[in-house]
Amino acid sequence: MGLYPTLEDMTVANAMNAQQAQQQQRQQNMIQSHSSAPYPTLTPGSRPDDPPNYWNQQSQTSQALQPVQPSSMAVANYSSAPVSGEMVGIKRAEIKDGLRMVHICVDPDSNKFGLKLKCIDAGVFVSLVAKESPAALVGIRFGDQIVQIDGENLAGKSSDKALKLLKKANPQRCELVLRDRPLSSTITMQKDSQGHVGFKFSNGRISHLVQDSSAARNGLLIDRQICEVNGQNVVGMKDKLILEILAGCGRTVTLTTMPKDEFEHLSKNVSRSMFKSMDHSIPDV
Amino acid sequence: MGLYPTLEDMTVANAMNAQQAQQQQRQQNMIQSHSSAPYPTLTPGSRPDDPPNYWNQQSQTSQALQPVQPSSMAVANYSSAPVSGEMVGIKRAEIKDGLRMVHICVDPDSNKFGLKLKCIDAGVFVSLVAKESPAALVGIRFGDQIVQIDGENLAGKSSDKALKLLKKANPQRCELVLRDRPLSSTITMQKDSQGHVGFKFSNGRISHLVQDSSAARNGLLIDRQICEVNGQNVVGMKDKLILEILAGCGRTVTLTTMPKDEFEHLSKNVSRSMFKSMDHSIPDV
Repeated sequence: MGLYPTLEDMTVANAMNAQQAQQQQRQQNMIQSHSSAPYPTLTPGSRPDDPPNYWNQQSQTSQALQPVQPSSMAVANYSSAPVSGEMVGIKRAEIKDGLRMVHICVDPDSNKFGLKLKCIDAGVFVSLVAKESPAALVGIRFGDQIVQIDGENLAGKSSDKALKLLKKANPQRCELVLRDRPLSSTITMQKDSQGHVGFKFSNGRISHLVQDSSAARNGLLIDRQICEVNGQNVVGMKDKLILEILAGCGRTVTLTTMPKDEFEHLSKNVSRSMFKSMDHSIPDV
Repeated sequence: MGLYPTLEDMTVANAMNAQQAQQQQRQQNMIQSHSSAPYPTLTPGSRPDDPPNYWNQQSQTSQALQPVQPSSMAVANYSSAPVSGEMVGIKRAEIKDGLRMVHICVDPDSNKFGLKLKCIDAGVFVSLVAKESPAALVGIRFGDQIVQIDGENLAGKSSDKALKLLKKANPQRCELVLRDRPLSSTITMQKDSQGHVGFKFSNGRISHLVQDSSAARNGLLIDRQICEVNGQNVVGMKDKLILEILAGCGRTVTLTTMPKDEFEHLSKNVSRSMFKSMDHSIPDV
């Protein structure tokens, strides 16, 4: 049994597999019946197990059940995703294991990198990435953990100390080592025919799940802050705008969420007006 | 710039890349100097930039710097991992995105599946997997979220309701849909020459980071509960035993941790003696 991005993908894939297995079984039965009876009687009545039109349907059915090659086969972990399809949103939202290094230079106008930092559990995290700032351009995201600035470890250091390190860094080439959003997690869901995923939220925080909706089926958790929709940052956006983004983002929706306590702590020193200047661009895949 | 499992891997890979780039630059310089001077003078003194033995060292150096093909190249996301090597522990600990389905039957002796459940944020989570139980055999882990039992969604249901569903399920074939440890995260580190990763813990909870250790370099967070060491569950183990497992697990160490609040909530109704009967087997890769 493989892994599926959503329960809907798994359900459809299971149905397809069952159909294929049934089909193979039928073909096998046919071969056996051929080999055991050199002159098989091909009238439907002679094989009570088969539906009356079995022999006529055969060629049609096997065509309809050709090996399924969903376009998402190349995506790691997902053995098949017949519903989620291309899943560009899943790729944009994907939280990657491991560390990466980026080099940034200060914005010559503002003399800033465009970052705000906050300390959680002896780690330094990104609490704001300013729109069109150097930090946004190198792909730093809200919630990233910075583990080193110019070779100096940040473990146990305050956010003020980290900011001082940024200030004394080479403005033309500051080296940051980052871990990808370690406090966040992602979940993928499918819209129903009315375009609903099946959850309510208030101030960006998930508050209710609709029974038997895709959100319920896929195990969305409440009391989490929505940080991204299909990888696009929505932190600090009004609920109305988040709803518009949700409405416009296609059938498959991937949410990046963070537990409320961590989110509140991270956003404590960031005002609503500051969040408005947050980078909300759609990340490169 | 790729992704690296640990900062040590990144540092070594960067050094190797720099050496290779330098090497290529030298070779290019040599070709240029050959083409500009049809009869090049090959004595060291004629090229003041080069170290005296450059020409003699050339063949040796280029051999030592042959393209590096770390054995871990095949691992998704990590462009190279010269230190972490085969990383079987990383693979065992890896938290996979997406949903999977398992079928379990009850243990005929105890008439149980071997699971304890707990509700967090409207989701149902596994708070105990009994040793050698049917749940352990199908690879269910501490911290897994169960989203469906026999086709019924668990969203918003209490753990008691989920247990009732388990009890009324077909004892020969109960179908569970699971999400892989959504509350946990993993971090990989390297031991130093004394075999230390660089953190202290008490009752399985990380309390201190050693300055400039691998734990500090890689951004380990404090106040997290250690749930697994290289994918092996250590929940409920005494600190001494966890230390022994850490000592015996090779140079590369991957920890699976959970924020303390979630861990405390999850383990609230599980006594220490119950934890002793927890599945502590090493998972299949």
